[in-house]
Parts: sequence; structure tokens; C-alpha cells
Amino acid sequence: MRKVAVVGAGKTPFGAFAGRDLRSLAVEAGEKCLANAHTQPGQIEAFYLGNFAGPSFAGQNHLAPYISTALGMRGIPATRFEAACASSGSAFFHAVSSVAAGLYDTVMVLGVEKMTSQPTGRVTEILAAAGDCSGEIAAGSTFPSLFGMIARRHMHDFGTTREQLAAVAVKNHENGLLNPDAHMRKAITIEQAMNARPIAEPLGLYDCSLISDGAAAVIVTAADNASEYTDKPATVLGIAQASDFLALDEKEDITTFPAVRAASRKAYAMAGMRPADIEFAEIHDCFTIAEIIATEDLGFTVRGNGGPFARSGATRRGGEKPVNASGGLKSKGHPVGATGVAQICDLMQQIRCEAGPRQLARHAVGLAQNLGGSGATCVVTILGAAR
Amino acid sequence: MRKVAVVGAGKTPFGAFAGRDLRSLAVEAGEKCLANAHTQPGQIEAFYLGNFAGPSFAGQNHLAPYISTALGMRGIPATRFEAACASSGSAFFHAVSSVAAGLYDTVMVLGVEKMTSQPTGRVTEILAAAGDCSGEIAAGSTFPSLFGMIARRHMHDFGTTREQLAAVAVKNHENGLLNPDAHMRKAITIEQAMNARPIAEPLGLYDCSLISDGAAAVIVTAADNASEYTDKPATVLGIAQASDFLALDEKEDITTFPAVRAASRKAYAMAGMRPADIEFAEIHDCFTIAEIIATEDLGFTVRGNGGPFARSGATRRGGEKPVNASGGLKSKGHPVGATGVAQICDLMQQIRCEAGPRQLARHAVGLAQNLGGSGATCVVTILGAAR
Repeated sequence: MRKVAVVGAGKTPFGAFAGRDLRSLAVEAGEKCLANAHTQPGQIEAFYLGNFAGPSFAGQNHLAPYISTALGMRGIPATRFEAACASSGSAFFHAVSSVAAGLYDTVMVLGVEKMTSQPTGRVTEILAAAGDCSGEIAAGSTFPSLFGMIARRHMHDFGTTREQLAAVAVKNHENGLLNPDAHMRKAITIEQAMNARPIAEPLGLYDCSLISDGAAAVIVTAADNASEYTDKPATVLGIAQASDFLALDEKEDITTFPAVRAASRKAYAMAGMRPADIEFAEIHDCFTIAEIIATEDLGFTVRGNGGPFARSGATRRGGEKPVNASGGLKSKGHPVGATGVAQICDLMQQIRCEAGPRQLARHAVGLAQNLGGSGATCVVTILGAAR
Repeated sequence: MRKVAVVGAGKTPFGAFAGRDLRSLAVEAGEKCLANAHTQPGQIEAFYLGNFAGPSFAGQNHLAPYISTALGMRGIPATRFEAACASSGSAFFHAVSSVAAGLYDTVMVLGVEKMTSQPTGRVTEILAAAGDCSGEIAAGSTFPSLFGMIARRHMHDFGTTREQLAAVAVKNHENGLLNPDAHMRKAITIEQAMNARPIAEPLGLYDCSLISDGAAAVIVTAADNASEYTDKPATVLGIAQASDFLALDEKEDITTFPAVRAASRKAYAMAGMRPADIEFAEIHDCFTIAEIIATEDLGFTVRGNGGPFARSGATRRGGEKPVNASGGLKSKGHPVGATGVAQICDLMQQIRCEAGPRQLARHAVGLAQNLGGSGATCVVTILGAAR
């Protein structure tokens, strides 16, 4: 297998953009990405699209050629990948694998979602279709309530507290305040987070990520060709995708995600690295409890210690393991199909030293963790500065 | 790249199955396929799912791990591919490419759609989301009317007749009558087809494929390992996917599909073959005109001659180039996400001499053509008996 490099990245701001449609967001991200890689549509040999629910949110299916042709790429294989909130992480995994295997030299991966044109209740319904609709969802669950149960169990088993959950929210809002492309740029205090309106107890308003519009794109190529596109490439050191049951009730234990463990162990093995080698991470904080559990499943801290780890400041920008310096899904926003590729864009900004006031001291090796549903899909990527 | 073999195939009957849900259809096809390849879920390294509109038709998204875990495959990468009616053709293309490149040794590709639980008007709406919803669909088009326009233009440019369209319908119904798994086993006459109730003129009822439920699965592996699974493997001789605009109004000419031409030329080149080397084919006859145009775009006959070619009997089971010996989408049925893989299963039946009364005299090299929308996606596969 060949080494693969990311040589271009582009994204839209995340937010609620009345009057912008899905395709215009995707085209903006794609064109920024092409410009960032100093290349043209004609150089792209395949188009990998991540999108969760374009038909339901935006009334448009068959989205891959719809977007690729608008970007001036006619004729090439153009395919949509759907894996719930890990849709574009999965598209990125398949694109990197294809280039590594020599199927293509240069491909574009783009993630997009346009969510805010639907009322919130309908958004919740559309998102719930990523759970088991004949079981847990039919019984009345929503994603906030599923993660509420996960949080409650984590509290029960490990003594995790509301304050520790709040620490995740406060940190991510603090980081997002410095991100000009973030959806919600607003500092909050531990007290505000703890006393916020309950959504699905023990989760309150600030424990939940945002409903956003946005798109993100990257170009990947064989590492040997990277200098044709950029003098600041990043290398994919490790990557893996894993799966698990959709329904919480099929799992032995809801306080850990086997797909996160499996994907990260494979990605670490591919990179020849241990968790301690990761200098910073973008983690799928769809809910604050998800970030806490991910820090455990990724091996950043031991099982059950994710709460104290968050509260200790270890995951803040100046801490030992900065997590979600971008603001995360909490503050940057979570247009679900865009999130996986947006995480790769965020890693690129840090690796390229282009993160402005959010720039981390140690930024040579970053990890992205993209979760689908309540853990049925996970993609983990380890990206490093090209040496 | 390694040679890739198809070593197992399994599918459900196609039909309208009240009381069967999407997952039970998929599991039936997957289990039949595992048994057919004499293997176990633990041997499968990745799961490629083709599905067009599970969220809209069946209220369930995030379908790949939902189905793979039900088949006993927990942990492996499980990904849904969406490319309109070419969804499982695209999943098959990506799976074959991955095995060819050495990413995996053995993978399952499964296609499924459960359409009949929605009323027909709603089915038409859901299918229309594969067209350009901000353009042609917003203006009132449906897929029957889009293909009606295509047929009208083909008649205008080339003198194609209603009788020639009807010949396609009569042939495919004649073939489907011999297929115990076909949705509509009913012989029709040229007169019945020509005098049927108009759907979108010049297309009548028998010019349109069916709304069906069904699933189909295949297992692909490195050709060198094929004998571990079966003594009747088939080899993927050529395969390609191509794309084009969604909207008819963006195309220079609506009587030819550039994506079909591009994908078939690539597949022929990969196989080192010409159209004359293809002994039989499964063609995406979503409408009779689509089969006529495909025989031109695939090079089975010259441009504009698809109508007379069909009427001549050349594409009947005893003709020079048998097309849709399975009954095609017209008679076998068209559960859209299942169709691409079902075509591969149909090729396998012929190549393995297991097609019973539909068995063709020449069956060593078959071609499958799977179309998405009104031509924005096409996957072409050439499969041959392993020698």
C-alpha cells in the first residue's frame, strides 16, 4: 500500500444559512478545496461524497453526481457514502484506501448536510432514523435520550458527574469562540452548563451539539505526488472503520463503544503508534458524554476516568491532550454529513500552523474520531505532518 | 491489481411482500449467499450495502451496520452506497475494486429495497428525488415523464416506433414467465403492450418497470482463493462506474447516456473485449426505451438502431445477443437498491448453468449494465466463467 497525503482542504462556515441550498454549500467547499490544492476539477479521478440524509433534510437524493457535475467533474465515478453521522468519515476512509491501493492517484472527498430548513422536531425524527427504528426508536427514544441513558449509566458505574460533563461543554465553547467558522461563538460557564434547560436528563441544552448547515472537502493523493499540490501536505498515518449494533439494547455495555475501540486499535497499529503519541484530537462530541467516553475508548485515559480527565483540564488547549480545539460539534457545529471531513480539515489547519489563535503548541500528529449513531459506525484517522 | 471472482450469490424472490420488512429481506439474501459460497459470517472482511432510499421507503437509515450485525458480522467496516437505481451496482464496483487492490480478500455486497409499503404516488415522489429536484422535478417531471421525453426524442431523431418499444416489453415478460423469482410472471402480446393505459406518452403501462421489494447478495474474493468457496466461480473481467448530469436539460443530447458509454468503454478495455464478445446481458430496462438506448450505448447495435434491433428478435433468448433473460426490471421486478447486485446474481445463474428453462446456449461471458436516475450514474460489469 502507498502512503496517502491530504493536500487540500476547504470548508464553508458552519451555521444556519437560510437561503443557501445543499448544493451551493457543497460547491463552495469543493471550490475552496480545489484552490487550496492549487488544482483543477480535471485532475480529480473520483468523487467520494459523505451525506447522511439529503433526501429527508433537503429533498434531494442521488447527490454525488449532482454535486460533482456542478464542480465541473463530469464522467468520473461519483458515489455517496452514508454511515449516519460518520458518513463523510466513511467516505474519507474509502477514498484513502483507494488511493493507498493504487486505484486512483487523486480524489476529492466532500461532506455536506443542510439541516436547518426543517423544524427542530422533524430534524430529531430524521436523526433518529440512524437508530434502530423497529426497536429503541419505536419505543420513543431520540438521540438525546439514548445518550442521556448512556450518561446516566456512566455516572452510575464510574461516578461521573454533571460538572464533568459541563467541563466538556465549557472547553469546547471556549475553543469555538476563537474559530471564525464556528456556528455558535459564545463562552459559557460551568454553572450555565449545569443549570441549563434539561433536554434528556442528565443532559441539558449545553450537553448537546448543534443543528447546522455546512460542507467540507479535502483532496487526497499519493504521498509521492503531494508536492505537486502543496508545500504543506499531511500524511495519513493510520485509518480504520469499524461497526457495531445500532440498538443500545443489543450491546453488552452501553458505557463503551466497541467500534471506537476497534477502529482506533487498527489505526494505531497502522501508524505504529500508541495513544500517548497523539498530540491533539478532534473527537465526535455529539453530546458531552460522547467526548468523555471517546477519550476512554481511544486510550487517552483509562476506562471510567473520562469525567475526571475532562475536568482536570487535560483536554483544554494548554493541556496534555488537547481535544476539539476547533470547538467540536458542540460549538463549531454539526452538519452531520460534513462532520467527518470537517474534522480532517481541522487537523490540517493545526498541522499546517494555520489555526490562528487556536493554534496548539504540539500539532504534528492529530487524531480524528467520527461516530455514527450511538456507536454503530466509527472511523478513526491519524494524520501527521509530512516530514 | 488481482483478478476478482464472484463465489456466492443469493437473493429473495422479488415481489410485493406485505409483512416483510427491509432487514428480513436483506438477511434472507445474505444468508442464502453465505450458504451458496459455503462460508460463514466470520470470513467476511467488509460489508458493502447498496440501498437507494431506505429512510424514505422504510423509515430506517444507517442501514449497513443494521443489516451486517443481523447477519452476524459485527465489527467489520459496513458501509451504505447510494447512487439512485445504481446503488448496489456502485457498491459492487467499490467492493470489486477493493479486493482487486488487495484491501480485503473476501467481502459481501448486498442490495436491498422495500418499496411497496408506500402508496404509489409516494413511491413516485421518492424515486423523483434521484432527478434534479430544484429543476426538472420542481417543474413537474417524474421518472416516467423524463423517460417519456427521452422516448419521444428517440422516435423523432431515429424513427423508433411504439411497436419496437413494445417488443422489449413482450420479450422481457416472456423471459420472466420462466423465472420463478420474478415479480410479474405474465405473458403479454405486442398489441396488449401497445394498447395499454398511457403512463407518460409515448410510454404505456407495459413500458414501465415494477415497484418491488427484494434483496440480492454476492460474495467476491481474490480469484486465487475462489476454489475455497465454490467449484463454479465467475471472474470479473471488466468493471467501471461513470457519472453525468442529473438533469436532462443540462445534457447536449437526451437520446444517449454518456455515462453508459464511458463505463462500458472502460469495462471493455479492462476485459480486452469488444461488444461482439459479450454473449448475453442484463440491461437496466427501467423503461423499454432505456433498454433500446442501452443496446446502442453498449455497442450491441449502432446509434439509432436500438428499436429495429429489439424488434428483430436479436435480444430474445434465441437471438444473437440475448438481453434480460431474467425478465429484466420489467418482469423480474425493480427493488431499486437491489437491482445492481441482482443483475450480477442473474449473470451468475447463466454462467453456472443454473438458469433452468431460461438457460442460454452461449453463457460464458455476460455483461450487466446498472443505471442511476436518467443516466447520471452507470456501472457496467463484464463477468466470465472461470477457465
